[in-house]
Amino acid sequence: MPTVLHYLDLFGVAVFATTGALAAGRKRMDVLGVVVLALVTALGGGTFRDLTLGAGPVFWVVNPAYILVGSATAIVIFLLVRYYRIPQDVLSVADAFGLAVFTVVGTEKALALDTHVVIAVVMGVMTGVVGGIIRDMLAGDIPLILRKEIYATASICGSIVFCLIYLLLRVQWLAVAVSIAVTLGLRLSAIKWNLSLPPFVSREEPTEKGWRL
Amino acid sequence: MPTVLHYLDLFGVAVFATTGALAAGRKRMDVLGVVVLALVTALGGGTFRDLTLGAGPVFWVVNPAYILVGSATAIVIFLLVRYYRIPQDVLSVADAFGLAVFTVVGTEKALALDTHVVIAVVMGVMTGVVGGIIRDMLAGDIPLILRKEIYATASICGSIVFCLIYLLLRVQWLAVAVSIAVTLGLRLSAIKWNLSLPPFVSREEPTEKGWRL
Amino acid sequence: MPTVLHYLDLFGVAVFATTGALAAGRKRMDVLGVVVLALVTALGGGTFRDLTLGAGPVFWVVNPAYILVGSATAIVIFLLVRYYRIPQDVLSVADAFGLAVFTVVGTEKALALDTHVVIAVVMGVMTGVVGGIIRDMLAGDIPLILRKEIYATASICGSIVFCLIYLLLRVQWLAVAVSIAVTLGLRLSAIKWNLSLPPFVSREEPTEKGWRL
Repeated sequence: MPTVLHYLDLFGVAVFATTGALAAGRKRMDVLGVVVLALVTALGGGTFRDLTLGAGPVFWVVNPAYILVGSATAIVIFLLVRYYRIPQDVLSVADAFGLAVFTVVGTEKALALDTHVVIAVVMGVMTGVVGGIIRDMLAGDIPLILRKEIYATASICGSIVFCLIYLLLRVQWLAVAVSIAVTLGLRLSAIKWNLSLPPFVSREEPTEKGWRL
Repeated sequence: MPTVLHYLDLFGVAVFATTGALAAGRKRMDVLGVVVLALVTALGGGTFRDLTLGAGPVFWVVNPAYILVGSATAIVIFLLVRYYRIPQDVLSVADAFGLAVFTVVGTEKALALDTHVVIAVVMGVMTGVVGGIIRDMLAGDIPLILRKEIYATASICGSIVFCLIYLLLRVQWLAVAVSIAVTLGLRLSAIKWNLSLPPFVSREEPTEKGWRL
Repeated sequence: MPTVLHYLDLFGVAVFATTGALAAGRKRMDVLGVVVLALVTALGGGTFRDLTLGAGPVFWVVNPAYILVGSATAIVIFLLVRYYRIPQDVLSVADAFGLAVFTVVGTEKALALDTHVVIAVVMGVMTGVVGGIIRDMLAGDIPLILRKEIYATASICGSIVFCLIYLLLRVQWLAVAVSIAVTLGLRLSAIKWNLSLPPFVSREEPTEKGWRL
């Protein structure tokens, strides 16, 4: 992976570890529960990406920096919140940054392995959203992605934009920058104006009795 | 994988994607929550099978048709249920078909890799049931397999029958047909007559005090 | 893996399968629900370890003894609890033994693949705790590790001790014995005297308004 993407990836780990640590804090876990939930959140998406791509050991086994950055972030948050209060909107913005960064990293990694572009988008979205899903399930919350607000949609759009620029123009820095801008813009707009896609509407009461197919 | 099994596999994906999409509908998710839950249900079992078999990239990374069929099914269901009502018994029958088909596909794939027959049965059952377990956990339900009614048992019997015919008679089409008939017959009978195995009974109150081992 | 560790591993499988089967019993599952929950508990941690290490098929695919030992244990427990009552403290001690044994097995397996020592500790802890986490989530409980009492901490200390003795003194039997003693001692002390690390304390009410970083 190119150097800039590697540092973006570590930045995403720190950001998602923060959201995991704060979720653990809401459940009053001890310092190790906090580290575990932070690492699961920060590394879960990339782990599923690497496992399904079948490309040998996952990224954090190859490079221990990921475990160290995630654990250190969790411990810092654990200590910090004893003295400072972290407002909810700073958290949401951080989560949006993590989503945007991980979407780019996951999409790039899949394309570098010559997967089909459909699979690259799936890998980008998976890298961005799976960690948060496991975090929410472990902490006993309904996963964010399964609620109404735009979340995975932002990641899908960012990943498609990355593929288009990367495969057509072959300018990687532009693909990275525009993709992050798209995901981040969509997600932050969704938070600010509470945007959502139309929900699933099923006809509980049929107009005629029974099955009309 | 032989051609007939490949099409059976895609049929199983469509059927399980339908059950995942309808589970998402009960929780009023948006279109992307529906697609995510449909894909997890349709591809979860095969993903765990391929990961644990350690045979490189999982099936849906190699062939994007699985993602496309699963997503398209979810979107069609999302639109369809606005106008039509899908009766519960059609759904249960569809789920039983998916279970039967995935059991055969999983068992065959393991045997083709020369695994021990015990492992082939585990892989058949895993392919059949894991997707539904993750679907139910994400949607906040107790997984079907952990409730009383016969479910995994049908899959185990179908998988054992497949192994017997495939390894002894070496006639694949017969193994596929009889295995699907066995799983489907057991599961549909269980639904129709509400069959279940005896539950776990533990002695909350011992006849003598303490531990008698 | 050396022979002694292989038998310790099978012993750990039987012990954790017992805890999984008893958790299934509390939910009144049928015999197959019991076997599934027992196998997930007994094999879940090692499965994640082998998947993330990327070393081909997971251990229970290579050697069917693990599936057979786990299933047989679950069936024996299923029958046994109809006639005998298993006291809670025997269970807690068994779980502590399983944790200690799996921590050693996981750490050793990672070191044998020449991973970084940080990763070896992560693998030891993962082998020890993941099965129990999945068991608790499937059964609808809050995972033990995310509650207050010392659990993962015992595993971390045991794993670090194993690495130190194994890498510095190069005496494997000593590393195994001391590591098991450390994990078991810490965990049993935590159970007996109800030890816990300090919980996460966050300032819900800031002294000054807003964000003070």
